[in-house]
Amino acid sequence: MSIFDIFTRKRSAPVARERLQLLLAHERALTGRADLAAILQEEILAVIAKHIAIDREKVNVKLDRSDQVSTLEIDIEMPQSVVKAKAS
Amino acid sequence: MSIFDIFTRKRSAPVARERLQLLLAHERALTGRADLAAILQEEILAVIAKHIAIDREKVNVKLDRSDQVSTLEIDIEMPQSVVKAKAS
Repeated sequence: MSIFDIFTRKRSAPVARERLQLLLAHERALTGRADLAAILQEEILAVIAKHIAIDREKVNVKLDRSDQVSTLEIDIEMPQSVVKAKAS
Repeated sequence: MSIFDIFTRKRSAPVARERLQLLLAHERALTGRADLAAILQEEILAVIAKHIAIDREKVNVKLDRSDQVSTLEIDIEMPQSVVKAKAS
């Protein structure tokens, strides 16, 4: 299921599963700059992991690279009570 | 221009402008969990800023929230030579 489905799916029943999806696209200019999608992948996952308990088996990461555009797709299905309480 | 445009735009000329776009969607279950899109916004920007010089005037951030889905859209236009050299 891609991130676009979120915006098209008709939902009648309330969401049973909690899900976080991220899509990052880096359009590179002529200079053939470093591929930010690949560079940012682990760091973005680390930021997310600070706030939700991530079960690595429920995380899908897809990295695609063409000559001008790289895309990173992260799809995380979250167990029910996962958001870590704020450190008080 | 939304992130979906990247995937539909027909491009003949090479990309003149370098661009980073991120779309994050948090589908919340019944529990009305905290809104991860809002929580992650600054932290994801901080991760990106570690790798590219960000001109805050060239950054568009859009946060939308419905009862079950929150979406965060970040659109960054990058000046030409921006990716910071790796700290050697």
